[in-house]
Amino acid sequence: MIEPKILKGFRDSLPRQEIARRRLTGKVERIFRLFGFVPIDTPAIEYAEVLLGKGGGETDKQMYRFRDNGERDVALRFDLTVPLARYVAANQQSLCFPFKRYHIAKVWRGEKPQKGRFREFYQCDFDIIGSDNAASDAEILILIHTCLTEMGIGSFRVRVSHRGILSALLESLGIAEKNADVLRIIDKLGKIGSSGVEEALIEAGISSAAAHNIMAFVSSDNGTFPNAISMLREKFGDADFICRLEEIHSILESVGIADEFILDMSITRGLDYYTGLVFETSFLDYPSVGSICSGGRYNNLTGLYTRDSLPGVGSCIGLDRLLAALEEIKSPVTNNTSAADVMVARTESLAPIAEKTALTLRRLGIKTDMYVADRNMGRQYAYAESNGIKYVITSYVDGKYQIKNTETRESSEYTDLAEFAAAATLGAATGQTERQQTDKR
Amino acid sequence: MIEPKILKGFRDSLPRQEIARRRLTGKVERIFRLFGFVPIDTPAIEYAEVLLGKGGGETDKQMYRFRDNGERDVALRFDLTVPLARYVAANQQSLCFPFKRYHIAKVWRGEKPQKGRFREFYQCDFDIIGSDNAASDAEILILIHTCLTEMGIGSFRVRVSHRGILSALLESLGIAEKNADVLRIIDKLGKIGSSGVEEALIEAGISSAAAHNIMAFVSSDNGTFPNAISMLREKFGDADFICRLEEIHSILESVGIADEFILDMSITRGLDYYTGLVFETSFLDYPSVGSICSGGRYNNLTGLYTRDSLPGVGSCIGLDRLLAALEEIKSPVTNNTSAADVMVARTESLAPIAEKTALTLRRLGIKTDMYVADRNMGRQYAYAESNGIKYVITSYVDGKYQIKNTETRESSEYTDLAEFAAAATLGAATGQTERQQTDKR
Repeated sequence: MIEPKILKGFRDSLPRQEIARRRLTGKVERIFRLFGFVPIDTPAIEYAEVLLGKGGGETDKQMYRFRDNGERDVALRFDLTVPLARYVAANQQSLCFPFKRYHIAKVWRGEKPQKGRFREFYQCDFDIIGSDNAASDAEILILIHTCLTEMGIGSFRVRVSHRGILSALLESLGIAEKNADVLRIIDKLGKIGSSGVEEALIEAGISSAAAHNIMAFVSSDNGTFPNAISMLREKFGDADFICRLEEIHSILESVGIADEFILDMSITRGLDYYTGLVFETSFLDYPSVGSICSGGRYNNLTGLYTRDSLPGVGSCIGLDRLLAALEEIKSPVTNNTSAADVMVARTESLAPIAEKTALTLRRLGIKTDMYVADRNMGRQYAYAESNGIKYVITSYVDGKYQIKNTETRESSEYTDLAEFAAAATLGAATGQTERQQTDKR
Repeated sequence: MIEPKILKGFRDSLPRQEIARRRLTGKVERIFRLFGFVPIDTPAIEYAEVLLGKGGGETDKQMYRFRDNGERDVALRFDLTVPLARYVAANQQSLCFPFKRYHIAKVWRGEKPQKGRFREFYQCDFDIIGSDNAASDAEILILIHTCLTEMGIGSFRVRVSHRGILSALLESLGIAEKNADVLRIIDKLGKIGSSGVEEALIEAGISSAAAHNIMAFVSSDNGTFPNAISMLREKFGDADFICRLEEIHSILESVGIADEFILDMSITRGLDYYTGLVFETSFLDYPSVGSICSGGRYNNLTGLYTRDSLPGVGSCIGLDRLLAALEEIKSPVTNNTSAADVMVARTESLAPIAEKTALTLRRLGIKTDMYVADRNMGRQYAYAESNGIKYVITSYVDGKYQIKNTETRESSEYTDLAEFAAAATLGAATGQTERQQTDKR
């Protein structure tokens, strides 16, 4: 006999987890599609050379890389960004630009498994490729605002910044060449605190005066978005990045959602491929949740694979983190993960019409399970309860269905299944209510 | 620069293909859920030992097998059946039996790529684990009937048989030990024809009289399901498999769908793990499509991983084949793959309200793309047409939207976007119509 074990860092998804995950991805997909974003997919396995790109990063060591049966040097994708760059370069002729795509798929990283870190997990990316202007930046931010609103986790803020700000600051301090180091260090602010950042900056060879200056700048509270813009303008004049931020803000105002956006100079995003707008999100009532949507503008994504310049702006949703947050607040997205609404029991009186009863309910749009094993009623109830099934049809006598509510343990009698469905607000009716609730924005 | 090439046998999924694929899987998932089946997922990478099982099959050579960074002998799953067996054994305590699950996921096989054969493809499996009776067999068949009906590819037949039939026949001919060979050979009937099968049987060491006898038996037309049962009973008496088939048939009759099921002794399914019911499907108007749903009963699936006996019955849907068929008949599932219903153009008059216009439409449930690049109207129209977007909002003057239909090239004027949505039967209204059409069974 073989032990049915799985690899460390990998997970089986149990039905209730998988129902919640699919419901969440269904919800965000619906929003992506409403915004005219289209889905794509790429191979899980690619040439290692293609996935490595210029290489040298942390990810190289974590990549699942091996020789296939034809001795080709291949690897499993470790993110959806590199495959996107390769995909856009390879399919340039077949795509319409600006290309708005989303991609929800698994990626693999052989990193040390630890709490909350897995070797196989989902990423959910969305990007606009092929335009560099405030309209595309704002479109991504509006999409994020819609997603976060729909999640129902309460008030949130999208903290926005621009790579140009820090560049201008470092230039004014005469240390422009330290840009990449400073970005990476400031990105750790949440983890190591402002004194930690200041120390790290000094360790990176920045004078203590400059380090102090940088920290004071990025952690200053500049009030509203327009106030922060005024401050930047005073300090840096009429720089391009200030006009871009102003334009983005005015679009957000035009759709009445500017209040949830703040300009936060401490947002840098560690990765060095961002070139303009950068952002993170936070839930006001659940600060521990961390950023659910982070991202920004990158203007040389496809440079490795094609000579055409294809600027982009995009973001990703942390599905696992979001699922955990939704579970914590007992959201309907993760909460009602019942396998079905109704179960038709396997009893003598029901036997001749069991399948017909189930099919009638299914045709009414009601999720209906038919108990198919030969077990006593105790076992059948236990099954219904474990599966979160609220109603059990227990018998059919003299043209009447006996239907038991597993929550209240009360029974009712019905001659007509449609009548029961209406009384229990199940099926098409409820289905629509659920949809409308989902649709409400 | 790196050439953005992908591995042979792998595919990029372009937006229109991906939209169609997701719409199809959404459709079948909805049916699975209506039947009380729940989704699961398993790791793409598992211990090679676990995936190989007892091994020795064709699949071993095709497996993507390698050493991970920790020198573990691992492999990518090559089907969803072996992972199901491992999953059920590993999670037995957390699952409710009978366990009805579906699993739609990618699998990988390093076989020689050829037309229509890929090294990475989706499988879509659904099974009931934990009961061995006619009720579970019939439940799977009713589910398949519902799926095929919903596809709208016209009349179809589910061709059913039972492994017991051929066993009984071979026993009566005194060649019971040839069972596995005979199953495998008869499974090729569609490919090599009856004379080919007869030859192959003789090559396998069966006398020409017996071979002829077998062929005559499996290719005889026994009329209706009840007629075929009578024939079997005359020949083999009151065997268990006859009672099982009869019971299944009576359940199908009780729900009024027995007409689409025929008893066809030539259905064997090549794989040796089936132990009872076996079936395939065919579309009467599109015989070239082949079987979309095949499967059967296997009573020792988990035997390799646990001592508990867990009988099962299940099937899979050939998604790629089904997609091709739907495309051929220009089904709405694969046909309307537009990225959005409406595009808001980027023009001077619209600029101040473009995002607000888009958001209003999106809140009405209308898929709305906002053109974000700085290009002339010609390029913007081309974009809308390439993306299959029917309406383009081109200007906003004196409180009136000009809206162009890209199919008829006609323009209309609206002051109210909700009025336009109603006139164009878009959004919530249409959404519901589409849903109801989908719901109709």
